[in-house]
Amino acid sequence: METYKKIRCCGGWVHRCKHVSKVLGNLEMNFTVFTPAAAAAGSPVPQIYWLSGLTCTDENFTTKAAAFKKANECGVALVIPDTSPRGAKIPGEDDSYDFGSGAGFYLNATAAPWSKNYHMYDYIVSELPALVNGNFPVKPDKVAIMGHSMGGHGALTIALKNPDKYKSASAFSPICNPINCPWGQKAFKGYLGDDTDAWKMYDAVELVKGYSGPDLHLLVDQGDADEFLQEQLKPEALQAACLATKGLSLTLRMQEGYDHSYFFISTFIDDHIQHHAHHLN
Amino acid sequence: METYKKIRCCGGWVHRCKHVSKVLGNLEMNFTVFTPAAAAAGSPVPQIYWLSGLTCTDENFTTKAAAFKKANECGVALVIPDTSPRGAKIPGEDDSYDFGSGAGFYLNATAAPWSKNYHMYDYIVSELPALVNGNFPVKPDKVAIMGHSMGGHGALTIALKNPDKYKSASAFSPICNPINCPWGQKAFKGYLGDDTDAWKMYDAVELVKGYSGPDLHLLVDQGDADEFLQEQLKPEALQAACLATKGLSLTLRMQEGYDHSYFFISTFIDDHIQHHAHHLN
Repeated sequence: METYKKIRCCGGWVHRCKHVSKVLGNLEMNFTVFTPAAAAAGSPVPQIYWLSGLTCTDENFTTKAAAFKKANECGVALVIPDTSPRGAKIPGEDDSYDFGSGAGFYLNATAAPWSKNYHMYDYIVSELPALVNGNFPVKPDKVAIMGHSMGGHGALTIALKNPDKYKSASAFSPICNPINCPWGQKAFKGYLGDDTDAWKMYDAVELVKGYSGPDLHLLVDQGDADEFLQEQLKPEALQAACLATKGLSLTLRMQEGYDHSYFFISTFIDDHIQHHAHHLN
Repeated sequence: METYKKIRCCGGWVHRCKHVSKVLGNLEMNFTVFTPAAAAAGSPVPQIYWLSGLTCTDENFTTKAAAFKKANECGVALVIPDTSPRGAKIPGEDDSYDFGSGAGFYLNATAAPWSKNYHMYDYIVSELPALVNGNFPVKPDKVAIMGHSMGGHGALTIALKNPDKYKSASAFSPICNPINCPWGQKAFKGYLGDDTDAWKMYDAVELVKGYSGPDLHLLVDQGDADEFLQEQLKPEALQAACLATKGLSLTLRMQEGYDHSYFFISTFIDDHIQHHAHHLN
């Protein structure tokens, strides 16, 4: 991997990196890592993964989320991947904002032609952590995960499927129940085919229903003026599932007047970083 | 004027506005205003103008500066204009990143063909304040001004020329001495013609030399890894001029390792807002 840009910010450093990903079929991928001042001092730090939403690259969060001041203060690294393979050259890949490039949905595609490259689940859970842990002063066993919208779905499902890997998980306006909303149904049908039982493996509400691991200290912020809330996001289904599941706490905060944008994320990101830092330390 | 978008952020509101500007030759202009929660409560608040740098619109600061949390906390409004007239249709207007559109340099052009539209000085000092004061709950007599690079030049020169209008001024990596750097010489020659005496009216160092108004509590942050520092910015000339001028204080902070980008601005913007809030209250 190559760090092709290193920019000082908020007392720490923003590293823009690229590498060739094996699990995504040997495509070049970009990602960003923020390391706090505490890491420069030589001692490894805990890390929080951020998974972005539809249409994003690693740059949206990096430039718009206003997260680095608090991350530096809490002494945590932030790992910010892209949202899909890039340049797979699959016909139709760039035609929709909600499917294909920029819309990997953090799953392993099993349906052709996507199954060759679209393995964002393995990328986030295995390949990228190995790379980051090997190249940055981070603690491999102190990891939290958070995300926005499609990335909120990613953060919740990945934590629920790997409670040994993540100490806590949080989300902004997550797609909580993709098997029951248009975004999720379109993506899961395309990437996973018609077997709806396979879809459930990537649905946060379904995963909560079967969950028996340690508490993941779930925190979800949801704007009540979010244009996608009604049709796509379904936080009430997540809340109901968590209430019926022993030992899995969820703090769901409905935020009055806030929409689906980075203006919303930048407002509450400090709370999420603080929440994870607390459970990582 | 029309507020075409109103977005909740950090407890306050981001207003995206447009209007037709008379002083810019009846062109449509966009600008953004952030109002803090304190303003929604009905009582008018102090205001800080932000002037952006080359190539920017009002959106760069709005999305990247991470300024709204502190502005809300301090109870100040932020007024964020564009950097030039738009759509004047002057031949060559869009050819350079450092002259024409996106590069108005906050002056009143006197040389043809720019003299018809390029009056960003009058726009920032007179027309926009009248509009903002008439349409938002702000105090017209409690105003500070700050900016970045070309906008740092704008903030310093506008405050130095109008000490009755601004309580304090600050800048990130400002073009301190435009008559002695390539960016400034190109712009001033184009907008003002060959009379270099006219150039001095828009040069912060020259204006400081002749300054006799009240203290403007100047604050300047400058990254020492800024690629433009050596050739274009000249903070040492500003510092020398301020030291030789009675009653005009300058705090110049060289920031180790920081560059010219919004990663730098977002790191120190809280300090600038706090500085102005102190002098506005």
